[in-house]
Formats: sequence, C-alpha cells, structure tokens
Amino acid sequence: MNKVYNFSAGPAILPHEVLKQAQHELLNWQDTGASVMELSHRGKEFDACAIEATQDLRDLLAVPANYKILFCQGGARGQFAAVPMNLLGNKTTADYINSGYWSQCAAEEAQKYCTVNELHIRTEHDGKVGLKPMSEWNLNKEAAFIHYCPNETIDGVAIFNDPTFAKDKVVVADLSSSILSQPIDVSRYGVIYAGAQKNIGPSGLTIVIVREDLLGKASRITPSIFDYQIMAKYDSMFNTPPTFAWYMSGLVFKWLKQLGGVEKMHELNQAKAQLLYKAIDQSDFYRNNISVANRSIMNVSFMSPGEELDKRFVELAKQENIIGIKGHRIAGGMRASIYNAMDLDGVKALIAFMQEFERTHG
Amino acid sequence: MNKVYNFSAGPAILPHEVLKQAQHELLNWQDTGASVMELSHRGKEFDACAIEATQDLRDLLAVPANYKILFCQGGARGQFAAVPMNLLGNKTTADYINSGYWSQCAAEEAQKYCTVNELHIRTEHDGKVGLKPMSEWNLNKEAAFIHYCPNETIDGVAIFNDPTFAKDKVVVADLSSSILSQPIDVSRYGVIYAGAQKNIGPSGLTIVIVREDLLGKASRITPSIFDYQIMAKYDSMFNTPPTFAWYMSGLVFKWLKQLGGVEKMHELNQAKAQLLYKAIDQSDFYRNNISVANRSIMNVSFMSPGEELDKRFVELAKQENIIGIKGHRIAGGMRASIYNAMDLDGVKALIAFMQEFERTHG
Repeated sequence: MNKVYNFSAGPAILPHEVLKQAQHELLNWQDTGASVMELSHRGKEFDACAIEATQDLRDLLAVPANYKILFCQGGARGQFAAVPMNLLGNKTTADYINSGYWSQCAAEEAQKYCTVNELHIRTEHDGKVGLKPMSEWNLNKEAAFIHYCPNETIDGVAIFNDPTFAKDKVVVADLSSSILSQPIDVSRYGVIYAGAQKNIGPSGLTIVIVREDLLGKASRITPSIFDYQIMAKYDSMFNTPPTFAWYMSGLVFKWLKQLGGVEKMHELNQAKAQLLYKAIDQSDFYRNNISVANRSIMNVSFMSPGEELDKRFVELAKQENIIGIKGHRIAGGMRASIYNAMDLDGVKALIAFMQEFERTHG
Repeated sequence: MNKVYNFSAGPAILPHEVLKQAQHELLNWQDTGASVMELSHRGKEFDACAIEATQDLRDLLAVPANYKILFCQGGARGQFAAVPMNLLGNKTTADYINSGYWSQCAAEEAQKYCTVNELHIRTEHDGKVGLKPMSEWNLNKEAAFIHYCPNETIDGVAIFNDPTFAKDKVVVADLSSSILSQPIDVSRYGVIYAGAQKNIGPSGLTIVIVREDLLGKASRITPSIFDYQIMAKYDSMFNTPPTFAWYMSGLVFKWLKQLGGVEKMHELNQAKAQLLYKAIDQSDFYRNNISVANRSIMNVSFMSPGEELDKRFVELAKQENIIGIKGHRIAGGMRASIYNAMDLDGVKALIAFMQEFERTHG
C-alpha cells in the first residue's frame, strides 16, 4: 500500500527503521533463539539491553549523575498520584500550574494527597490562548513542589524555557508529549516524567527522571511500584518491567543518537512546526488559536470554518493515507502530532492535502 | 539456528504462531499502513481489537456477566496495593494466606493499608513441602477479604481446587502463573488478577477480573489507575493502556480457543507435568521437594545433588538450547516453567538432557 502518514497524538508514529529492526529480530533476538519479549528481565541479555537504553537516554538528555532514570508502569496518570506520594514529605501543600487539560487532571489527582494550590496561567487576548510567563506565577512558600506540564497535548499550548525559579524550588514536569523534542537543562528539575507513547516507544512504559536527594520521602501509603526509592534501588526491576517497551525505547534512543541527538531533532521539529503553522496562518480557511509564543512544536491544532467541514476533512484525509488527524474530543477540529518520528515529508503531505481540501471546500 | 526451548518463569515463552503473526503484521496491521503499537487506543481499529480480546478471555474462562475484565498496568506487585485499597471498604482487616514468597509479598504490601491476619499454610513432612487444605484455614470473621496465591511460581507449590468457602466470603486470588492453565469457577472468586507475562502475553499488562458488587469501595487515597471502578467505567482506557501487550494477549487468546480452550490446555499441562515429575522421581540424581498433591503443573522445581552441579546443569543446558532453566535466586536449583506455550516436545527435550546430564555427571 502507499505510505501512510500517521499524526496520532499517542500511541504515535515510531521510526520506520526501528519497526523494521524489531520485525527482523522479533523471533530471534541477539541469537538467543527467542523473542526479546520471551526472555527473563533478570537474564544477562535483557539486563544489558536495559542498561544500554538507560545510558543512551542519559546521554541524549545530558542527565546529570545525581539523577536516577526509572522505567515504570502506569503512565502519566499513574505519576499524577506518585508525585505527591513521593515528594510531599512532611509538607501538606503543593503548587499546581494549570495550563490546560492534563495539568488540571494532575492537580485533581493530587487533591487526594495534599492541599493543591492551583495556579491558572492560561490567558486569552483577541481570541488567542497564551500562557503567563514563569515570572508571573504566584508560588506558595509552603509548597513541597511545583508541578507543571510544558506541552499540553490536546490543544498544543506550550512553554519552551526551562524553569527559572530559585534552585531550592522542587520543579516537577510532565514531559509526556515533549520529552526528547528539544534540549533541556535537567538540573533545573526535581522530577521529570513522561509516558513513552509519544516520543519514546510503545505505550505501557513511563520514564521518570528523579534527583537523588528527593528519594526516600515516600509516604507510607505509597504502593511499592510507585515508590521512587524502591524503583531506583532495584534498577526499575522491583517488579517485572514492560520489557518489550523498554527494548523498543532503546532502539528509538539509538535512532535519535544516530540522527544527531536532541539538538538536531529540535531543529527538525522547529522546521516542521513552522512550515505547518505558516500554512495555517497564510490561509483564510484554517485557524489555530494559540498565541505564537506558546505554539507547541509537537501538537499542532487547527480548525476549518465549521464542524461539518472538520469531519469531512478527517474522512477525506484518511482516504489520502493521512491518519490520526482528528482533534481530541474536548477540543474538536484537527490536530497534527508531529513527534520526532514524523519527517518533513509527512508534514508537506499534510499541507498539500490541506491546500487541496481548502480549494475544493473553501 | 536449532530450536530453542525456553523454560523462563516470566517473561516467558509465547506461542510460535502468535509471534509469527505479530512479526508478519508488525508494520502494517489490518491494512492501516501502521503498526498496531502506533495507533490510537481510541481509534476504531484498536477498540475492536480490545473488545474482541476481552470477549475471548471471557469465553475462555467462562467469566460470568456480573464480572468486569480489566486490562491494567503495574503487575501483580501493583495489585498487592490495589486489592486492599479497593476492597477494604469500612473494614480494617484482611486474611492473607501465606503459601510462599509471592503470597508473603502481597501480605507485606497490604500492611500499609490494613491489619493483616496472616495464615501460614505451608507444612513439611519428611522433607516435603505441602499446603494445608482450605478446610483448615482459620479465617477471620472481620476480614474484608481472603487473599491467596494458588500457584507459587518460585518453588512450584500449588492449590488446584477453587475456593470452597461460604459464598459471602470475598476471595482474592493471584493467578499470575496459573491463569488459563486449567478451568476455574470464576463465580467462587471476588477478584482474580494476573500479570500477563507467564500465560498470557508480554510483560507490562495485568489482567483483573472483578465482581461488579465489589466496585465503588476504593479508599480516597487510591491512585485512579488502580481504582477498579474507574478502570471499569472507562473500559480500561481511563489512561493509555499498553496497547501492544493487549493486542498480543488477544492473539494468544485466539490461539488458545483454536487449540480447544482451557480444558484441552489442562489435559496437555497435566501430561507435561506428569512426564517431568516422573522423570525426577524415577531418578536418584534429581529431586523435587513438593508433596505430590501440591506439585505445580506450571513451575516444576528440581535439584541435582549439589550447587556446583546445578550450576553446571544450567550452563550445559544452555549449550543444548535449553534456556531459562535456572531456579529463582532464593530457591536455587533448577526450575522448568511449562506454561501453555511450552509443548510436550519441549518437555521431552528437557528430560532427554536431564538423563544425559545424569549419565555424565551422576
């Protein structure tokens, strides 16, 4: 069949080369005569694979030595509970920055465990959604940590700079849809977490990067599999990890390194996003309602002049092998998720379809 | 390469036909032009796959209509916390049957959430480990539920009959290493859970089968992804599920159905286990220290006359393409996990190697 362009928000497109390799060795991995998913996580073959993947991720994000990298289960939703359970210590309140759907979900879950100081940072000027800069966030002195989500996947509103707060603030960031899309200064964060299913690998794996001095403060009610100290002590093998997803992530990390790492990806991501936003902005037919400074380079949302046209757009796009383009149910319209694995050709194909659709339906 | 016989305790052998199919369609699933692991869990293709897998599991285990089947993350270890969080209600104590390592781990985790009434049922007569029958379990009237593990994976000690308690008792069973190995009467259980990585599919997926009247009692501190009611309400898609593992499990369920279901598997499993235990019992070289009535048909443990010989056995076995045979670190010796996907030929190959090893090292 013809090439399919997959703009799904997650689970999302994976690098073709990675899938080809996984397919090639699916029944006989590393000459073991078995599939990687059939082998013990405690065997030397998988153990070496796990260590290498962890090191590659450490290299890619320049993770300092005083941070642990954990391979967990439960998704970002699981971390919405795990973060307060691990970090509150003897404090009872935390700052939750509300920039959209996912950061709000995190705040709601945290209310089970602490008093949530919710800070709404979304602004609206001339119909454009923006986000207040960090300098205007009214933080709470008693807060155990600040939680925010730099890239809101649903409508594609984003913060690009690393945290600028005093270094004694513990900053927690949900990077599910932005991890590995640009260089970051990990040392500015206390905890970074990300569901794998957007920029890393298959769903069912969650990456947690945690500063070592934050370990060991989990409350007594923390399920062991959510306790960062336990997971760190056992190298993420306290319980059986999702081995196939871990292996696939390792292949993605190798692919990223070969392509030039996160700096190179950032260039490509910016180029893809600029091209797509330009096509939207130059059209009178499509619109995006995020202010330019906060436009995500991972999730680009846009609408046609009406809901019926949006629906038709999605249907016709599928016929042209452009899939996963429907907007989230709470946002409507369309959304093109252009993660690392989506190349410039895919974005060009989408733009060509958009222009043709405008010509025939405008 | 020659055929490899994989006796790993988990992640474990998968049916060859299932892996072949997964390999064949890894880059283009159901003519979508994408891998199953690249597609949205909310799209119609994956949704149909998820529903079909769930129904097939319901058929295989004859799960009554008043039970929900959930596809979760976090493994059995996660359920060690989730069970008391969901089931205690306004009670404060639960009965935990200790039959070995895993049931003890479950009891330890539960102590975070309730008073654990731990009942030790292991017995020892003439050097053989047995388990007290259910009629001798001293249950606590105030207990919210009874938790037990019918098949202890590490040393292969098992209980084969369904619970026989009064129907108002809520029985929770960890079937991680025995699910789908024999028919069960689901109506005798309140909750059944199982990590997928032994008899179902890749690691990172946990099956929970829960009676509907037990939903809605989760304590306030339950992480949402562990709340059975939330997971049931959202058809296990409250958060992004491990889609590839779910899909693989669906292939395994189809394979099981085609082979004649759980009844047929039970026959085959009994035949495999009997052959292997017979080979052990007839030898003066190997021994198994589980009493006959409690010998697992999934995990067969055995030892040679000494630790050095055990080590040599494992090394030489690997050279003969028999892998995953090393015993758990806390048990030592050898362990052959003979899950559904291990065929009789594999067991015969193991026995032939055992006899050859005895001949050359006895």
